[in-house]
Amino acid sequence: MSEPLAPLPRLLMEPAIRGALAEDLGRAGDVTTEATIPAGTQARARMRARETGVAAGLDAATLAFELIDPSLSIRQPTPNGARIARGDVLMEIEGDARSLLTAERVGLNFAGRMSGIASITRQMADAIAHTRARVICTRKTTPGLRLFEKRAVRLGGGGNHRWGLDDAILIKDNHIAAAGGVRAALTRAKDYAGHMLKIELEVDTLDQLAEALEVGVADVVLLDNMGPDTLRQAVTMAAGRVITEASGGITLESAPAIAEAGVDFLSAGWLTHSARSLDLGLDFD
Amino acid sequence: MSEPLAPLPRLLMEPAIRGALAEDLGRAGDVTTEATIPAGTQARARMRARETGVAAGLDAATLAFELIDPSLSIRQPTPNGARIARGDVLMEIEGDARSLLTAERVGLNFAGRMSGIASITRQMADAIAHTRARVICTRKTTPGLRLFEKRAVRLGGGGNHRWGLDDAILIKDNHIAAAGGVRAALTRAKDYAGHMLKIELEVDTLDQLAEALEVGVADVVLLDNMGPDTLRQAVTMAAGRVITEASGGITLESAPAIAEAGVDFLSAGWLTHSARSLDLGLDFD
Amino acid sequence: MSEPLAPLPRLLMEPAIRGALAEDLGRAGDVTTEATIPAGTQARARMRARETGVAAGLDAATLAFELIDPSLSIRQPTPNGARIARGDVLMEIEGDARSLLTAERVGLNFAGRMSGIASITRQMADAIAHTRARVICTRKTTPGLRLFEKRAVRLGGGGNHRWGLDDAILIKDNHIAAAGGVRAALTRAKDYAGHMLKIELEVDTLDQLAEALEVGVADVVLLDNMGPDTLRQAVTMAAGRVITEASGGITLESAPAIAEAGVDFLSAGWLTHSARSLDLGLDFD
Amino acid sequence: MSEPLAPLPRLLMEPAIRGALAEDLGRAGDVTTEATIPAGTQARARMRARETGVAAGLDAATLAFELIDPSLSIRQPTPNGARIARGDVLMEIEGDARSLLTAERVGLNFAGRMSGIASITRQMADAIAHTRARVICTRKTTPGLRLFEKRAVRLGGGGNHRWGLDDAILIKDNHIAAAGGVRAALTRAKDYAGHMLKIELEVDTLDQLAEALEVGVADVVLLDNMGPDTLRQAVTMAAGRVITEASGGITLESAPAIAEAGVDFLSAGWLTHSARSLDLGLDFD
Amino acid sequence: MSEPLAPLPRLLMEPAIRGALAEDLGRAGDVTTEATIPAGTQARARMRARETGVAAGLDAATLAFELIDPSLSIRQPTPNGARIARGDVLMEIEGDARSLLTAERVGLNFAGRMSGIASITRQMADAIAHTRARVICTRKTTPGLRLFEKRAVRLGGGGNHRWGLDDAILIKDNHIAAAGGVRAALTRAKDYAGHMLKIELEVDTLDQLAEALEVGVADVVLLDNMGPDTLRQAVTMAAGRVITEASGGITLESAPAIAEAGVDFLSAGWLTHSARSLDLGLDFD
Amino acid sequence: MSEPLAPLPRLLMEPAIRGALAEDLGRAGDVTTEATIPAGTQARARMRARETGVAAGLDAATLAFELIDPSLSIRQPTPNGARIARGDVLMEIEGDARSLLTAERVGLNFAGRMSGIASITRQMADAIAHTRARVICTRKTTPGLRLFEKRAVRLGGGGNHRWGLDDAILIKDNHIAAAGGVRAALTRAKDYAGHMLKIELEVDTLDQLAEALEVGVADVVLLDNMGPDTLRQAVTMAAGRVITEASGGITLESAPAIAEAGVDFLSAGWLTHSARSLDLGLDFD
Repeated sequence: MSEPLAPLPRLLMEPAIRGALAEDLGRAGDVTTEATIPAGTQARARMRARETGVAAGLDAATLAFELIDPSLSIRQPTPNGARIARGDVLMEIEGDARSLLTAERVGLNFAGRMSGIASITRQMADAIAHTRARVICTRKTTPGLRLFEKRAVRLGGGGNHRWGLDDAILIKDNHIAAAGGVRAALTRAKDYAGHMLKIELEVDTLDQLAEALEVGVADVVLLDNMGPDTLRQAVTMAAGRVITEASGGITLESAPAIAEAGVDFLSAGWLTHSARSLDLGLDFD
Repeated sequence: MSEPLAPLPRLLMEPAIRGALAEDLGRAGDVTTEATIPAGTQARARMRARETGVAAGLDAATLAFELIDPSLSIRQPTPNGARIARGDVLMEIEGDARSLLTAERVGLNFAGRMSGIASITRQMADAIAHTRARVICTRKTTPGLRLFEKRAVRLGGGGNHRWGLDDAILIKDNHIAAAGGVRAALTRAKDYAGHMLKIELEVDTLDQLAEALEVGVADVVLLDNMGPDTLRQAVTMAAGRVITEASGGITLESAPAIAEAGVDFLSAGWLTHSARSLDLGLDFD
Repeated sequence: MSEPLAPLPRLLMEPAIRGALAEDLGRAGDVTTEATIPAGTQARARMRARETGVAAGLDAATLAFELIDPSLSIRQPTPNGARIARGDVLMEIEGDARSLLTAERVGLNFAGRMSGIASITRQMADAIAHTRARVICTRKTTPGLRLFEKRAVRLGGGGNHRWGLDDAILIKDNHIAAAGGVRAALTRAKDYAGHMLKIELEVDTLDQLAEALEVGVADVVLLDNMGPDTLRQAVTMAAGRVITEASGGITLESAPAIAEAGVDFLSAGWLTHSARSLDLGLDFD
Repeated sequence: MSEPLAPLPRLLMEPAIRGALAEDLGRAGDVTTEATIPAGTQARARMRARETGVAAGLDAATLAFELIDPSLSIRQPTPNGARIARGDVLMEIEGDARSLLTAERVGLNFAGRMSGIASITRQMADAIAHTRARVICTRKTTPGLRLFEKRAVRLGGGGNHRWGLDDAILIKDNHIAAAGGVRAALTRAKDYAGHMLKIELEVDTLDQLAEALEVGVADVVLLDNMGPDTLRQAVTMAAGRVITEASGGITLESAPAIAEAGVDFLSAGWLTHSARSLDLGLDFD
Repeated sequence: MSEPLAPLPRLLMEPAIRGALAEDLGRAGDVTTEATIPAGTQARARMRARETGVAAGLDAATLAFELIDPSLSIRQPTPNGARIARGDVLMEIEGDARSLLTAERVGLNFAGRMSGIASITRQMADAIAHTRARVICTRKTTPGLRLFEKRAVRLGGGGNHRWGLDDAILIKDNHIAAAGGVRAALTRAKDYAGHMLKIELEVDTLDQLAEALEVGVADVVLLDNMGPDTLRQAVTMAAGRVITEASGGITLESAPAIAEAGVDFLSAGWLTHSARSLDLGLDFD
Repeated sequence: MSEPLAPLPRLLMEPAIRGALAEDLGRAGDVTTEATIPAGTQARARMRARETGVAAGLDAATLAFELIDPSLSIRQPTPNGARIARGDVLMEIEGDARSLLTAERVGLNFAGRMSGIASITRQMADAIAHTRARVICTRKTTPGLRLFEKRAVRLGGGGNHRWGLDDAILIKDNHIAAAGGVRAALTRAKDYAGHMLKIELEVDTLDQLAEALEVGVADVVLLDNMGPDTLRQAVTMAAGRVITEASGGITLESAPAIAEAGVDFLSAGWLTHSARSLDLGLDFD
């Protein structure tokens, strides 16, 4: 088995978190805290879950507090990826009260959003756990937060699709039309791709699938908007020669039937673009 | 009446959109499009709503396309803020097919997310339209996108709370505790604030409200987690001397009763942190 | 009383100071020091005032030295905001001689400029200390240094006006003209502003003031270019219903009479745009 | 004769001006203008001098307006470097009224500060115009604005000293002490410098000057804090073998006598660190 | 066949080219040109090859000129990727002489370096053109220029390996050792990778290859430092089940024999880390 | 003698190295290492030379490792500038195995490239060590890496020419033509330059040299594409009044004869634009 996921590298997280803090501090910083909290006041706070879900984004939240004040003492009793219940303590932070209050909102915004994504992914993963299929996310992520959201999906038991326009080839209907058909598009793609890029083709019909299988270039086929029966046929046609991915309006309710059709992956954009934040709070002692 | 909202200034939008495009293009750019679409291919596409809602973020989407290719011709028949129905055309884009396909996802990600926020805000605004209260958002915005999300709330008929930690004073329970009580906190705040910052105080009880009114410094009181009856009493006590804002777990269902209690504002973090994206698509001719 | 002002948050100061160091080091760094100072040479230096004034910007100077060499040992016996006399020691820095010499100029440039602003503000504040008025600065700050200059004004006993175009509404003559008069401008502003932005109106005549008071929207009126007698009338008319701010060509000499007219604030752009640097020097042992 | 100075390259000016606009627009932009000025309102404004001086920074002001709105039409009837009198029109700007008002303050902040520097430099240059000496600035510039301030000095008839720590060697007392004397410092410097860096030595006494002349490495000597008589002796000793620069507390009043002593250059830090802004205003038609 | 390579997207090229221009212009810009070239002087220049090779980087050079002066008129009679001979005109640029001279060096630095890489790649590609193998580059690129160098390799007839640490899995000896062997490393990789990342394994021996083939996870095997005979055996063992890549000290001389062994790819780091610049010059009319 | 060269200041190195790491880590980081190396695995590695040369860039490599993981323990037994032989240990790094593997390539890319430049410079320096001439580099550096490459040249025993367009005046043929001749160009340059910029003139003929010497403004003459005999005449004519620099197609083979002609400097662009990387490797224990 592969390793449990480590915190994201600081070098990758830092620009977005620094940007979020700058956005919140504005030009003058936390005026309320400077006005009302006596300098030197010490405090201890616990970030707690206020509902059930899966923890994620705690590495990002930790960095938000550290960027405001590296002298804060931070413990994280709950690992990213853990299932959590109402009342569970996710982080404990101790130190200068002003620093704690100044970083609080950005820390919670990251942790809440990512935990929300991990939680809904977990629900999807659980819903299809009896099948061989795995749920994966798409490029429909929040602008600027793809790193964090793709990670949250993994922490929730899902997998990642490609990270951008450049790390895999995904041929959709418009590409097919402009290239002059499935065969032409696949041939061009193979010629371009070299040996280190996977090639995926979106097919809307079993005829297209048949043509793709005949050409034999695609590593993956995206079976778009097909019902369980059609998917089952597609899986049979694919016969293990290509990886199969079902896509298009899949919900928590429809997922089991789709997964039971035998596809390898279910992709769902709403894991990232429409997850609601998990309710987390910072309680001061 | 104030002016309809103009597109956001390009200077303010550009960093986030440039960042989102860089995130999506990665190091090598849109390899699929370069591989499959013949250079010079022209195309025309329409961004259409696939469900009912309120349009927002179309200025951001426009800039995404322009940053990829300033020679694209873009029309926007639907203004930001308009109510839209399934099938409505939000944008028409014409020009180099490669450019269109490369910018598509980032453009949709911005427009979908912001329209989602505007749409849910519109629902809230409609639900309390028979009262004098107005719905407003909070600082629980997506890291890096506050500019766009605050605008989306306005486009949906809501209002904005403060934009960050520095443009108003908002004294919460931890500030009160550390300062040594409501009176001390308010006095410190007034001494600090000068004449151009508003001061808001979060109160959890009517006793705190009474003390705040006696001190007389707060411009606004945030009435946290109070039911309609308590809110009604609070409004009576306030008697117009302070602006009243209800907060805490307000839903579409509970909003009307809360608004009918007579408060000036209802604030709800989920407008921004938990709105789902509105379903938009780009259809090629 | 509110807290004495803490050093500015590092997160806010860092970009400007890093930029100033990059500007001074250029591509090749401090060639003189590398050429002439033997590696490993240790030194101790004291930053001293060479004239009377008020200390400010020592947090920025400290960060300049730290960014060049975090191993420097820095003491700051004089707090920002303290009145200082010729010869007073503001900072003591000890460590690698090369680092000290390389950071010297940027450190002094920040401390000298900010102390100059604090010093002239202190003179203004002292000149009107017998009145209830307070001196405040404007947006006429040095491009890129608003954070530091607004702070220096506070350290000199003054107050801050708005920090930018977005944290308060300030309606000037051109806005009034374009909106179609004082009433129209104020009505638009109130409609736009929501509950967390203060609204200020610039008035040139008592008639305009009367209209503004009748409309009743403005929190603050800026009384532009009025003599003490007119100001006195304005204050009487305002009768505490709005905050009053006098502005326009106020000098150290004219300030007392203006303040004695009873206004709440005197604003002066030259505190920031035309203060001369305080003469500070770094003396090596 | 060399060419009149062209506008600074946009590539060099843009970061500072973009930064200044971002600083002023903050997160939400110009809320007053958006609230009160009807969309589409056209306006014409003239930037006028309100006092006598020398124009500078008009290229920077132009770029500020262009960055807010490239569709503004801008004329600049007065070239940078021109002597101006009260009422002279420096720029004419026509177009969208909102854009004009939003960019106004940043444009004026740049033009006012740079014109102030050019004006005081012009006074110094005029005061010593009967001599062969030329006034020059130092590295005591405003952090982040060196490009603009060095240019303003030239526009006022002065010259530039080195631009940073890396484009020339300037050996001061601390370098001499650490190196073990004038000869050692100069020898090290020559060995390090190569053939494209000038070497300047600061000398406090004629003995040091004699030693420097004997070593024969320095291209320039900085004669620090010497009165006219000593300077005259120094110039005689130098006998054209090195360029001579007088420095240290030189004022408009003391400059002529110092220049008459025969030195090549007078350097004065206050040209940049303590110039007051020239009073400029933007008048709308 | 896939499309001829278009110019790189401006959005991707701009940061590096803007950075290179800033590096060259420094703080004060092109002082020589400003001093000696009369303002308004027009010029026409041709970039010419001074030796035989393959053109590349002309899109980058074009952008360098455009960023200095968008009014320059630029023609590019030679497409990137074309074989060129001494004297061939690659670009013609016409317009302001100052702009031309200021951008010249950065433009040539990009074009020369990239043409150098394309040229040496072309030599390698030609040397193995009689085989089915293709030459590819590695991650041993110049820091900050990977985009341009990977493109230059393609323009010279080579292919690209992965673009960074994140777009494919490449398991080397240290990974194998730490994971506990080939099987463990491959199993972990498969579990981690999902369906859109290719997996490559570096093998040093035929035994390792046999184990890898048995595990059946790797898409590609990197055959490190094997001679033609061993490679031939490896290719036979692979039998088309995995893509084969030969690597390790391959030179122009040794390439044909290696390619003739039947491998799919030859990778060579020196294409990018040790190519010499192609000699290009800018001749003014 | 001047000091041995210290490591470059971190402030100057950091942007390029951070950029190179971001380029290599991409969006998702080092997926291979995360997949295959168990968290917490410790490792020790040695960077070794695999061929003879001169060490350089080890400060940059160190910073690459530190930016990935500040807890790594790094020793550098070989100073930058040292002559190294195959097998010599340049750096020893100990700590988290994942960090080591993630930073490896960027560290090696910097060290290899810079050591390559230092090594070839050392060969040139040795080839002319019997003369008084010194080899120097040009502005033909890799875009974005000038800081590191200029340093590498010094570490190899060479010297630096100007660092950019702004720190010295270098008048070439096009400047001369546009200015109207050698005399006009030099006069303009002197008028512009002030006292802290050196002036160099490129001359193609001895007639031009004679004219330059007569004008007497140039500090340095660049003798372009002259053979040893002509150079000898030029040196005689210069007679120590100007520094002489030979340039144009100088190779390791032709260098001694050119240096023996008596010039002060030999400049060669290929030291930086066409050096091949020195072969370095990271060996794990």
